[in-house]
Amino acid sequence: MLKQLQDSICQQLEHLDGLATFQEDSWERPEGGGGRSRVIKQGGVFEQGGVNFSEVWGDHLPPSILVQRPEATGHRFYATGTSMVLHPRNPYVPTVHLNYRYFEAGPVWWFGGGIDLTPYYPFEADVVHFHQTLKTVCDRHNPHYYSVFKPWCDEYFYLKHRGETRGVGGIFFDYQDGQGYLYRGPDQGKTADQVSQSLGELPQRSWEDLFAFAKDCGEAFLPAYLPIAERHQAREYGERQFQLYRRGRYVEFNLVYDRGTIFGLQTNGRTESILMSLPPLVRWEYGYSPAPDSPESRLYEVFLKPQDWVNWPIP
Amino acid sequence: MLKQLQDSICQQLEHLDGLATFQEDSWERPEGGGGRSRVIKQGGVFEQGGVNFSEVWGDHLPPSILVQRPEATGHRFYATGTSMVLHPRNPYVPTVHLNYRYFEAGPVWWFGGGIDLTPYYPFEADVVHFHQTLKTVCDRHNPHYYSVFKPWCDEYFYLKHRGETRGVGGIFFDYQDGQGYLYRGPDQGKTADQVSQSLGELPQRSWEDLFAFAKDCGEAFLPAYLPIAERHQAREYGERQFQLYRRGRYVEFNLVYDRGTIFGLQTNGRTESILMSLPPLVRWEYGYSPAPDSPESRLYEVFLKPQDWVNWPIP
Repeated sequence: MLKQLQDSICQQLEHLDGLATFQEDSWERPEGGGGRSRVIKQGGVFEQGGVNFSEVWGDHLPPSILVQRPEATGHRFYATGTSMVLHPRNPYVPTVHLNYRYFEAGPVWWFGGGIDLTPYYPFEADVVHFHQTLKTVCDRHNPHYYSVFKPWCDEYFYLKHRGETRGVGGIFFDYQDGQGYLYRGPDQGKTADQVSQSLGELPQRSWEDLFAFAKDCGEAFLPAYLPIAERHQAREYGERQFQLYRRGRYVEFNLVYDRGTIFGLQTNGRTESILMSLPPLVRWEYGYSPAPDSPESRLYEVFLKPQDWVNWPIP
Repeated sequence: MLKQLQDSICQQLEHLDGLATFQEDSWERPEGGGGRSRVIKQGGVFEQGGVNFSEVWGDHLPPSILVQRPEATGHRFYATGTSMVLHPRNPYVPTVHLNYRYFEAGPVWWFGGGIDLTPYYPFEADVVHFHQTLKTVCDRHNPHYYSVFKPWCDEYFYLKHRGETRGVGGIFFDYQDGQGYLYRGPDQGKTADQVSQSLGELPQRSWEDLFAFAKDCGEAFLPAYLPIAERHQAREYGERQFQLYRRGRYVEFNLVYDRGTIFGLQTNGRTESILMSLPPLVRWEYGYSPAPDSPESRLYEVFLKPQDWVNWPIP
């Protein structure tokens, strides 16, 4: 399923791009498994992007995961996932990230992942469309999914040292094993936790239910993102300084906070595939702040804070 | 002493730069203390650079430091330090970093810090000069210092996920409290540890001895770096793609490995001062490797591995 998803997403993105195509590197992991990394560079729309698939197995999961899933201790594991990050050249087209993964180890299995959007300029209609598409998929499977997985995404993609979300969020979930609890995030994650507690325990969901949900989430990528990219990709722009500056936050998030990135780097993962998520060109500037009443300041004031996008504008 | 060092270094760097001057931001820390951050931007030589001084105190040191210095538990602390990073525009001029700090907490005190050089192009004479200058300072104080602090620097400024040192190193030390041991780094640091073990315990050094050593180290910055910057700053260059690409490694090191940076970000430090170390413009490129027999490949093969620079060339 994930390989098919990788294929169809790459094909559609190439069609949108119109200029460049994905180049594939297949790789094997000495301890078991491997993957196929696909990169698009210097395209018509995408300055750089990567769409990865991997499938790995081994003797034991790393301690950081076993803390969350102690039942997996002492068992061999299987893990598969797809991840992608697209960095468009045009600053009016947002960066997008997606990752879905599945784990099995002895008596336990679970699904995780999510998708989030990082715009550089504040177009409300884009964000409403993105969130509404995700909510529609969630609602098809469970009336509580969006209300739990949306705040979980806001929580996860948060840069504490900047007091900013990475972008406008989307959905994120982890450790979905069919048991009642929807939220199994870090304790400090008050928002999603409160939502989850207010729901109480829910009926069990089967492996098939969760597989179907993950599949639908993956297939929602193109309808969620393509219309936004299509709408702005030909829009004229001047200097790209603000886009390059904001890309610095993407680097900061991925290297300082993202568990997958840090875990991969510390455990001899394939460095080039892991860091494919980093933007091709980035600026830092000491003491920058956006001009008052500019689109840039609106991004900070409204778009880099959690918002109830599907009910936007607030009545 | 550190404020005077900050003043004299800024003055000399402005003289070299010839175009831009340092702009100062003074800041206070609500829990106690403060600092003065100085930044130079868009200069004649320096695309961006920061020279910081800080002096802070509080109720207790963070757990990460208390693990190394359990005697400080339950005591108030005082800490002061200077740090600087300079990113020249000309790719033939190396980036340089310096940091010296001093801690006091209850019954214990210690000095730490170091300096390291990150060239983009392989000029052996620069590196020999840099290391020889540091060794001369070390030798003035203790015949073992350079042989312990040089490999400690190679160990600390190492990017495990790339299999590369950050640059050509310099010297680095921590927890110098006048007791016999010179090396108190992480256990996995075999190189410096082996050197240290082979020395056995050394005679005690007084606070005054170590203060004099730290002062000399700070004052060695200008003679170690300025001649290198002066030699290359007017050299003609073409495209800067390789320099911008290599700057990505600087970002990766500072955000993934550097204890000071990560600690600062996680504990509500002044983000802009902490991230002043990041380069102003950076590139990432999937799957890059230098052309065979190029200066770039020589950098990788020789300069990004620990070398015995003061005895270069190997006979």
